Amino acid sequence: MNPHTSKPPLDPARWAHIRLFAMDVDGILTDGTVYISSDGTESKAFSVLDGLGIARVRDAGIALAWISGRYSGATTRRAEELAIRHLVQGRKDKENALRDLATHLGLSADQVCYMGDDDIDAPALRWAAIGVSVPTAMPEALEAADYVTTLPAGRGAVREICNHLLRTRSASAVS
Amino acid sequence: MNPHTSKPPLDPARWAHIRLFAMDVDGILTDGTVYISSDGTESKAFSVLDGLGIARVRDAGIALAWISGRYSGATTRRAEELAIRHLVQGRKDKENALRDLATHLGLSADQVCYMGDDDIDAPALRWAAIGVSVPTAMPEALEAADYVTTLPAGRGAVREICNHLLRTRSASAVS
Amino acid sequence: MNPHTSKPPLDPARWAHIRLFAMDVDGILTDGTVYISSDGTESKAFSVLDGLGIARVRDAGIALAWISGRYSGATTRRAEELAIRHLVQGRKDKENALRDLATHLGLSADQVCYMGDDDIDAPALRWAAIGVSVPTAMPEALEAADYVTTLPAGRGAVREICNHLLRTRSASAVS
Amino acid sequence: MNPHTSKPPLDPARWAHIRLFAMDVDGILTDGTVYISSDGTESKAFSVLDGLGIARVRDAGIALAWISGRYSGATTRRAEELAIRHLVQGRKDKENALRDLATHLGLSADQVCYMGDDDIDAPALRWAAIGVSVPTAMPEALEAADYVTTLPAGRGAVREICNHLLRTRSASAVS
Repeated sequence: MNPHTSKPPLDPARWAHIRLFAMDVDGILTDGTVYISSDGTESKAFSVLDGLGIARVRDAGIALAWISGRYSGATTRRAEELAIRHLVQGRKDKENALRDLATHLGLSADQVCYMGDDDIDAPALRWAAIGVSVPTAMPEALEAADYVTTLPAGRGAVREICNHLLRTRSASAVS
Repeated sequence: MNPHTSKPPLDPARWAHIRLFAMDVDGILTDGTVYISSDGTESKAFSVLDGLGIARVRDAGIALAWISGRYSGATTRRAEELAIRHLVQGRKDKENALRDLATHLGLSADQVCYMGDDDIDAPALRWAAIGVSVPTAMPEALEAADYVTTLPAGRGAVREICNHLLRTRSASAVS
Repeated sequence: MNPHTSKPPLDPARWAHIRLFAMDVDGILTDGTVYISSDGTESKAFSVLDGLGIARVRDAGIALAWISGRYSGATTRRAEELAIRHLVQGRKDKENALRDLATHLGLSADQVCYMGDDDIDAPALRWAAIGVSVPTAMPEALEAADYVTTLPAGRGAVREICNHLLRTRSASAVS
Repeated sequence: MNPHTSKPPLDPARWAHIRLFAMDVDGILTDGTVYISSDGTESKAFSVLDGLGIARVRDAGIALAWISGRYSGATTRRAEELAIRHLVQGRKDKENALRDLATHLGLSADQVCYMGDDDIDAPALRWAAIGVSVPTAMPEALEAADYVTTLPAGRGAVREICNHLLRTRSASAVS
């Protein structure tokens, strides 16, 4: 449908260089839906497939960061459960937040993979060595991305990227 | 499928005249589902894409109103979060509620965009300069609408309209 | 797909005779999903489209009944909200429950419409003058049904039947 | 799409031998989504169709087990409601957990059906006489499975297997 969803294939060596996998939350780890309750609580729908991939990436020594434009207690809870070390909420200037974090970790852009779905993610997607988006993303994010997942957001899109990161890692460990 | 979902394209100038963007809640800002819990709370599933669009429309100085036929604490919470100034609940006579609000704001029909999905929304859809509906709307609403969104209700339909309102605004600011 | 989903069209006069519209809950008023929480509460996803249709059928003087094989506090809450007079929970012998209710109301089978989606609904679907099922129903229910809705369960399937009941009513009022 | 989803048909006699029906929870009894709330509760979406099938399999004297890699209070609640005797949570070594349970019950692999959707389920899927997966499973699980359901996970996939187990049972009781 969207001309931006078909991208040239990525050189596997690019995945192997990644030391920080940073991502937006709503629309990436979820399908972009927030469940608002009359009692003031808020829920989000996360994927167990994504959770297992994230745990493996963490165990492989790749830094993990969640960068969300909006504060949510549900996001905090899920980040705690998955032991996400770098949780940034309430920042819509995603590129600056990402650059600050990379500097703090002593990493350059070619060691960073960023995943986002909205137009405010586009500069961060362009800055990172590998910018990833999802099929339901806004056109600006799709255009800025180097890779668009096959699996939908909140239903394995993050797992798909984890598998890419881990596959090249085990391959480079062998060779 | 439905003959009413394909409409002639709208003249961009019509979007540029809008000063009030009013909308139904269930079936527009959500997919029409209410989650009822055994403990008496009620939840609704809102879209973060829509939320960002609404914030931008608000910042651009366009008045925002939510007009719902049914009272819901979940709607109240989400309206507070997005700082919706005009929240009307429990009125099924949508056209009267919309006309009253326009009069209160000193606006005429050609400055109003209304978005709704059910048959009770049809008169308001016809009265407003731009009546918008969604692909899953009831036939009476689709028939009355001038524009039917591509994105589904609760998954970006409102953002799509926000983008139209903002695009013409920035274009007219330039010219 | 399923050969049972295409049925011969119903004579409009059959809808006009209905005085009791009885229905299963899970898989009819919802898509068959129950949301179970770690705190012991249970939620179900109901449709606002269905809710408006039910209110109109009630106002038109047609008796309404919900007959569920399973007890749920979420069902009780939604039934209260929609003022469903006859709420039967915890009975898997749907046909007996339906016959008992019809007898209590002084109605015969040709005045009853029943809607259900599982094999335990099949005898009640056959007994009622109009048995209605939904596209995602079990094969036994689809086979027993006289009419299969176009709209999905939990997303307007009940509204579709309400509209049939109301359309023939207003037509017969005119003639 | 996936070459692993089309499998040769199973000999009905294989279903008739099953004495233990064990299954993963997330991605099998649900679609793999966990709803995390800001108040610390967690919910999962289960299917009423699956629930009725499980009750019948239990009444037919087939042992039932749920084996999950992750602990969840929502899973515990649903298991209590359906009287699942063998509930194992927090074990990612599914094959060992399944073998331990079979030994405890005095059963051999040819009496066991296992259902799972992720790569960590693959060894258990291969060990069991009948390994079952779902259309949305990870490739490793699909490859290891003997049978892939038509109905989706969390929307009848488990019911489909229950119906296979019960059909052969009543057939063998007759002959």
